[in-house]
Amino acid sequence: MPTSTGDPPLYFRHHVFVCCNRRPDGHQRGSCAAKGSERLRDYMKARCKEMAIAETRINTSLCLDRCEHGPCVVIYPEGVWYRFENEADVDAIIQKHLLDGGRAATLMIDNDRG
Amino acid sequence: MPTSTGDPPLYFRHHVFVCCNRRPDGHQRGSCAAKGSERLRDYMKARCKEMAIAETRINTSLCLDRCEHGPCVVIYPEGVWYRFENEADVDAIIQKHLLDGGRAATLMIDNDRG
Repeated sequence: MPTSTGDPPLYFRHHVFVCCNRRPDGHQRGSCAAKGSERLRDYMKARCKEMAIAETRINTSLCLDRCEHGPCVVIYPEGVWYRFENEADVDAIIQKHLLDGGRAATLMIDNDRG
Repeated sequence: MPTSTGDPPLYFRHHVFVCCNRRPDGHQRGSCAAKGSERLRDYMKARCKEMAIAETRINTSLCLDRCEHGPCVVIYPEGVWYRFENEADVDAIIQKHLLDGGRAATLMIDNDRG
């Protein structure tokens, strides 16, 4: 996929970063892993592999610094953030964003820093 | 920073993912951490903090799956990949990409899958 800026083509069409940071139990910020993100990452990886979604990587990330919204994921190059709580949420993100090229609108996290 | 697609503004102007995956010594693929990426990540975080570069996150990532080029980093939303070996390389990426909005051209990794 060429870019419009003179940069090389994207290496991954979709690069999905799943926060799997884990803080100790009882930590005031909590953490995505403590809220189940590792299981959902595993599910997302397995589903994308089963569906043979090309040029897409489901990547484990440490803290994305949006813990208050977690468990969360960000998809680049779009820079769209989602909160996902269960396998149905993962399925919606895969279908609507990765396959259809739209957005799983009800799961999107507001990016307003206001 | 608004996008042209109807998506929300980007949450991070630059989201920098540094591969800090570590495989056991002697593993045939090697790993970015074994090649010093954690130290360079720490240096990059510290320098960006000292320089107060806004809306930029230096993020620890696990395997970015481009181990043969490592230690490596990818910067989104541009999707530009760099190999960095030392602090001077980090300084070049910060100055040319994050601050000047250009590219540290000599450090860029070819994205051609051909």
